[in-house]
Amino acid sequence: MSLYYEKKLNREVLKMHNFTYFAPTKLYFGKNVIENLGSEIKALGDKVLLVYGGGSIKKTGIYNVIKEQLQGCEVFELSGVDPNPRVTSVNQGAALCKQHGIEVVLAVGGGSVMDCSKAICAAAKYAGDDAWDLVKNSSLVKEALPLICVVTIAATGSEFDCGGVISNLSTNEKMGLVNPHLWPKVSFIDPSYTCSVSKYQTTAGSCDIMSHYMEQYFTTGVNDIGDGFLETELKTVIKYTPAALENGNDYEARAHLMWAATLGCNRMASLGNDPSIFVCHAIEHELSAFHDITHGIGLAIITPKVMRYILNDKSVNKLAQFAHNVMHVENSGDAYADAKAGISALEKFFASIGVPEGLSKIGVDDTHFKAMAEHACAYNPLHKAFIPLNESDVEAILRQSL
Amino acid sequence: MSLYYEKKLNREVLKMHNFTYFAPTKLYFGKNVIENLGSEIKALGDKVLLVYGGGSIKKTGIYNVIKEQLQGCEVFELSGVDPNPRVTSVNQGAALCKQHGIEVVLAVGGGSVMDCSKAICAAAKYAGDDAWDLVKNSSLVKEALPLICVVTIAATGSEFDCGGVISNLSTNEKMGLVNPHLWPKVSFIDPSYTCSVSKYQTTAGSCDIMSHYMEQYFTTGVNDIGDGFLETELKTVIKYTPAALENGNDYEARAHLMWAATLGCNRMASLGNDPSIFVCHAIEHELSAFHDITHGIGLAIITPKVMRYILNDKSVNKLAQFAHNVMHVENSGDAYADAKAGISALEKFFASIGVPEGLSKIGVDDTHFKAMAEHACAYNPLHKAFIPLNESDVEAILRQSL
Repeated sequence: MSLYYEKKLNREVLKMHNFTYFAPTKLYFGKNVIENLGSEIKALGDKVLLVYGGGSIKKTGIYNVIKEQLQGCEVFELSGVDPNPRVTSVNQGAALCKQHGIEVVLAVGGGSVMDCSKAICAAAKYAGDDAWDLVKNSSLVKEALPLICVVTIAATGSEFDCGGVISNLSTNEKMGLVNPHLWPKVSFIDPSYTCSVSKYQTTAGSCDIMSHYMEQYFTTGVNDIGDGFLETELKTVIKYTPAALENGNDYEARAHLMWAATLGCNRMASLGNDPSIFVCHAIEHELSAFHDITHGIGLAIITPKVMRYILNDKSVNKLAQFAHNVMHVENSGDAYADAKAGISALEKFFASIGVPEGLSKIGVDDTHFKAMAEHACAYNPLHKAFIPLNESDVEAILRQSL
Repeated sequence: MSLYYEKKLNREVLKMHNFTYFAPTKLYFGKNVIENLGSEIKALGDKVLLVYGGGSIKKTGIYNVIKEQLQGCEVFELSGVDPNPRVTSVNQGAALCKQHGIEVVLAVGGGSVMDCSKAICAAAKYAGDDAWDLVKNSSLVKEALPLICVVTIAATGSEFDCGGVISNLSTNEKMGLVNPHLWPKVSFIDPSYTCSVSKYQTTAGSCDIMSHYMEQYFTTGVNDIGDGFLETELKTVIKYTPAALENGNDYEARAHLMWAATLGCNRMASLGNDPSIFVCHAIEHELSAFHDITHGIGLAIITPKVMRYILNDKSVNKLAQFAHNVMHVENSGDAYADAKAGISALEKFFASIGVPEGLSKIGVDDTHFKAMAEHACAYNPLHKAFIPLNESDVEAILRQSL
């Protein structure tokens, strides 16, 4: 009754790769940790750019709590940062930083606000006018303003990584900006802030969290510690999402989802595994870029389709391991059958938490599929993925996801 | 076939606690990562104190590789650091630092060398003459020299935490020094350096690693992510220690043990769990202080005895969970029976990797048991442990471990 899939003993599969790890963000996790914001921010400066989204933080009262912590600081604000944050917001924020001599950026919100703020921190120290230059070529980032994050949704894990995703609506592009200068100095992670998150956004957040771990899981060289961590996180999200949907105020459920989110994107959980290509993210970024859909929902719709598409002799054992160790599929001895059962179980789970059945249900048609496939392959090395994909593969997956 | 022990759904047990996490050490993990030592050390300074132990690094050739990386630096040496490192070595190292204006300390070795070096880094910046002051009262540590570690054995995880354990043979005391100034700046972790570690020391190292995780596992408030991580690490050590003993050059086995060691002591794997008291460590430190035995071996002898001693209605479910999820004991439905079977399986595992049967086999008699029990309870809040222990409990455990 080994908890590890037997095939793991196959030394051809098992391999601990070299890696470098440096995650210098200080995390405050738990109820009321915001009490430490004032002293942490004043240690970095007292001219602050406060960045937030559509104003839900005013409804929930978080805005007032933050302002109290900022007493004694000179505070400028950039509000209205959209989901799939725009480079136009980044440029606006960077201009404010340059104009007012901002010393520290404070992001209060979800992934969009944190990602936008990271790009602002970089752009504020960039001589050029257009932050899109940095997104296109992250090596131009030589320094950045210090960033503090206050997280309000369990999803992207932006509070504990050094990357962000920025959209350019004028070119239908959505791309990642990753640079070691962009680690937040401090992140405040209070799961009770997520209790007011809607059911739809809770579901979308959980799908995003799961995708981050699945993207790291399906790869070639792996190690037992990485796989054990990734399976733990996936099971945790599957267990606690229904509880959080049933009772939004279930603190333990929110706390498990929040902590799973925070560890999701800095590869801590998969160190030593073969660094994987985030295939589903690459494809979904195109859907969001062309249709501005909710990232996590897009991911949940396409992920099982990608799994089914890549099922072959190379991937079958890992997909079966996923079925056994994450989706609680009994080991039948037939790896293909179990892999398929695992994918179906994942689809059923997503449906149970309210993910729409297909892209057509969220307003996506096939008009831009060809362009999306071209972009996805142009901006991401999908030919180096666990199971390599080309443009026609991506287009086929998109069609199967309709 | 849930991978989580069903009792975990009991919300009285399950609890995600507040925590702060900040682990600002840069890790280089893998073969030949030492190539980056020169540039990392020169970024911190060029007057270096090189600290090492009995000279095995000269036999293995690591010494020469290090010296090559240190070309251009002014290097002073402190060698001969003993297992269970002495405060006398710390004072000697600190005096060298003060005398020569050392800018960075380079520890090359195992836990003893790294722990001694941490204390040297603190003592070098302390106005007093005796580092034991700092061990007795870590709040006296206000700053410290920067430390770089090169690890040569998978055991303590000192390369990725901010604490060390120092012995004072004149008073038979062995105590921890923990302070946030003592995080290594950079740690170089090349598993191939551990291929030459003897079978006995490999076993002792694995026992130490397992103990770190078990000490974090047996506690009250827990969360699924913490427990999943801890179980993953324990299973990994149980799986790979026999492989490393069978073939010392099995890189994958060494790499798994090494990475498990590195994550063992900074509580990363149990964040959100109720911070636990390291009960077995508290007791073993007394054994080492009085008898200078090998730390990991002492731990392995007493751990199953502690488990059996604390087995009661409060601990039985967690001990049964350990049996099911770590020791592969089938769930019989009888938690007490399964808990006992898990403890026996652990004892059998330790015996299989060469741990002696009892303390009497490693030269310990009961002469000092009373004093040890007094010290253990005086220096550690064992009355606040998962199952609270007093002096007579500790003495009884020691007698049962003979």
